[in-house]
Amino acid sequence: MTEQELGITESKEHNPGEWYAEVVQKSGLADYAPMGGFIVTRPRGYALWERLQNHLDGWFKETGVQNSYFPMFIPESYLEREKDIVEGFDPEVAWVTHGGHDELEERLAVRPTSESIITPFIAQWVRSHRDLPMRLNQWCSVVRWEATETKPFFRTKEFLWQEGHTAHATHEDAWEETMTRLHQYERLYEEVMAIPGMLGRKPDHDKFPGAHTTTTIEALMPDGKSVQAGTSHHLGTSFAEAFGIEYTDEDEIERTAHTTSWGLSWRALGALIMTHSDDQGLVLPPALAPTQVVVVPIWQADTEDAVKEYAADLAAELDGEFRVEYDDRDERNPGFKFNEHELNGVPLRIEIGPHEVDDGEATLVHRPDGESEVASRAEIGDAVDDALDTVYAKLYAAAEENLAENVREAHGRGDILGTIGRYGGYVKTGWCGDEDCEAVIKDEIAAEIVMLPLDDDEGAVHDTCGICHDEAEETAYFAKSY
Amino acid sequence: MTEQELGITESKEHNPGEWYAEVVQKSGLADYAPMGGFIVTRPRGYALWERLQNHLDGWFKETGVQNSYFPMFIPESYLEREKDIVEGFDPEVAWVTHGGHDELEERLAVRPTSESIITPFIAQWVRSHRDLPMRLNQWCSVVRWEATETKPFFRTKEFLWQEGHTAHATHEDAWEETMTRLHQYERLYEEVMAIPGMLGRKPDHDKFPGAHTTTTIEALMPDGKSVQAGTSHHLGTSFAEAFGIEYTDEDEIERTAHTTSWGLSWRALGALIMTHSDDQGLVLPPALAPTQVVVVPIWQADTEDAVKEYAADLAAELDGEFRVEYDDRDERNPGFKFNEHELNGVPLRIEIGPHEVDDGEATLVHRPDGESEVASRAEIGDAVDDALDTVYAKLYAAAEENLAENVREAHGRGDILGTIGRYGGYVKTGWCGDEDCEAVIKDEIAAEIVMLPLDDDEGAVHDTCGICHDEAEETAYFAKSY
Ligand SMILES: [Zn+2]
Ligand SMILES: [Zn+2]
Repeated sequence: MTEQELGITESKEHNPGEWYAEVVQKSGLADYAPMGGFIVTRPRGYALWERLQNHLDGWFKETGVQNSYFPMFIPESYLEREKDIVEGFDPEVAWVTHGGHDELEERLAVRPTSESIITPFIAQWVRSHRDLPMRLNQWCSVVRWEATETKPFFRTKEFLWQEGHTAHATHEDAWEETMTRLHQYERLYEEVMAIPGMLGRKPDHDKFPGAHTTTTIEALMPDGKSVQAGTSHHLGTSFAEAFGIEYTDEDEIERTAHTTSWGLSWRALGALIMTHSDDQGLVLPPALAPTQVVVVPIWQADTEDAVKEYAADLAAELDGEFRVEYDDRDERNPGFKFNEHELNGVPLRIEIGPHEVDDGEATLVHRPDGESEVASRAEIGDAVDDALDTVYAKLYAAAEENLAENVREAHGRGDILGTIGRYGGYVKTGWCGDEDCEAVIKDEIAAEIVMLPLDDDEGAVHDTCGICHDEAEETAYFAKSY
Repeated sequence: MTEQELGITESKEHNPGEWYAEVVQKSGLADYAPMGGFIVTRPRGYALWERLQNHLDGWFKETGVQNSYFPMFIPESYLEREKDIVEGFDPEVAWVTHGGHDELEERLAVRPTSESIITPFIAQWVRSHRDLPMRLNQWCSVVRWEATETKPFFRTKEFLWQEGHTAHATHEDAWEETMTRLHQYERLYEEVMAIPGMLGRKPDHDKFPGAHTTTTIEALMPDGKSVQAGTSHHLGTSFAEAFGIEYTDEDEIERTAHTTSWGLSWRALGALIMTHSDDQGLVLPPALAPTQVVVVPIWQADTEDAVKEYAADLAAELDGEFRVEYDDRDERNPGFKFNEHELNGVPLRIEIGPHEVDDGEATLVHRPDGESEVASRAEIGDAVDDALDTVYAKLYAAAEENLAENVREAHGRGDILGTIGRYGGYVKTGWCGDEDCEAVIKDEIAAEIVMLPLDDDEGAVHDTCGICHDEAEETAYFAKSY
């Protein structure tokens, strides 16, 4: 590739959609598949997903979750056993109708989500209160045939995710589970991805089909739109009743279990790319970056040997503790290398030239803002450690500032529309609880109620509904969303 | 469950098929799904697959392989671009014909294997010799609509596997790659699964569609049948030509790449269960066992406190180094616990009773054969380490002995049929290279040529073909197979 082909040409500020697509492709995260709506996840993109998986999977296992694997196909009659599921997913399902040359007797849905195949098995496996809680998870792909424009990781017909499915003795236990998983998602976003999340619940008309409560973690993107970054559903007893999860309690009384389900998809990668990256390309937090540190020697003919020896030695020393690349390619000049590693999101660049060799130092350059610092060669490990912490802190602070500045109050149709139209972000307003009042805003500006506060008892921000001016029951957060 | 429901009732020797199905279900590895040909992999089964994955994935990454993810659907027109693939897989493909309420313009195959979707992307990404070798792998599920009886892990319409796809500059590089992966599969079987493998190649008429050479690792099961335990294909230039993988070499000359593909599926779990397990249930090598050591306290009312304290302390000490379960359930007696942990394949049981407490000892019981040894409490960590090594060695030795005893020579149709019919196992015979000679044996006794020696130049075991008595070109290994 020429340098021009290599670099990002679109502007994040002015053309966020085109910029995003360009970053994803040019930094080698993903390509478009031949079928509309599908993508190919390339090694650098998949490596990010693997690291997210490793963090989350470890936390799941520490908190009693067991991985399993259920069939990717679900018979149509199973999907129909929970009527809300049918209504919720029917228009989005891909159907297998033929196996080899034969038409199947019953159509099989490619799973859009697996409640209707997993719950009947939990029903078989649960007999007594001693079998509860039962916590299963699977890492798999699901298909939802939505006819919208493809946006890699954000909107694809097939996507990778994890789906957890649990059964509990009581409503309270199921609620605790729902919140445990929501907080693990929050931890993933904050600690690993450097993105602050807002926790809330969805309004009744936007809950998961059949759910008692759908909780959500929302992340605000720099373009002012909210991403539903993960969801955790308290399903109440609706699925347990539809599929018969009964258990005998300590007094030998037959009871119905309470279930939950929770999922986080590769949309998290979309939020990650969108939040931190810039017009130079990908920006990654150190915990996720496939390469954390790149060491680039800068030499002339007369300094080549000394610089390369010093740089190689330094890279080797860092190699055990960090994910290091030593870039001593002769066919590329340092400027080309800088651009390439910036495009690919390497959080820290170490430049070694003759001055660094003479002074026993190293120049460390932070990816997010180009800030450079000089470190002593003797303490290079600690310096890199600190610099990576600083890079994380910079990323988190920028995202946090964006969020803090973009939660606004408004009241009255014109005020709400005007505020979202002008600034994006979240607008808090009193809400009467009626879906029709959301529709007034949605029809006008495509913003919707993305969340309500988690605590039902929290008072509404205004006494009256920001739209109809009837009495307000709670606070609604309006935003445009992905 | 009652003790009777818990235990295995079928005999491995007399009813291997029923015994296998019973072990899989009662030890909690898998259940049958509602759709024929599909299974549900339960946590204990999935944990085995995860450990196999971890080993293999680590070795892949150490040898230059990058994980990625390609769509689960392949357009029909893509499948048709490599004609051998169409002919090879067409009868086995599940077809998606509808997305939501609409019929698709082009049918989509649920991937039976991914050469035809991955190779065109490799063609896009490879430009010059500097892009080679390119080594991609994905862990995913595939679907093959074979209308045979379901046997969990051995024969299922959907199965989990990894599929590696690589491109190389030369035929020799591709051959080296093919063998690197075959040897990693061998290592997995031998070191991790305690199963010796036989390496070979498939006869031309049984190669992967379009392949130059299909290599195989075959594992002999105790019932005398061979399992194709993993395959690695040198695809020559057929796929590179069909999908256009061209690169410019060092002299700026355009050349066609050479590709490979290689896969190992959860059939490995089938081989694992079938090889080591017995009439008490599952037997697992320590490297794979979710629980490696179970500590069972055995007490009467007057010794309860002392025994439990001693046992809990011992379990806690082992817990960092091994995967340990401390089974102090009051509602179960020791005999029930022994049976349950044997059923579930825990490699080592540690019994702690009042005698062990008094003498500062522990009784270690090996799962495979019930052999027990007394270890000093003070050196319990080393003793457990040694005992687990011994368990592995016992499992490997038994499998190796079974293999060594069951490779026989035979010559002449009657001799071949009689030897396989009487003993099972492998029969080596001279072979002229004609598929018709295999058919003579296959039609009679359902045994086929499962492999030929890897080295083409190795002389044939007999001068003449064991079936037609024409000149022999090489040695064929006949066996019944899974
Ligand atoms: Zn209202
Ligand atoms: Zn012959």
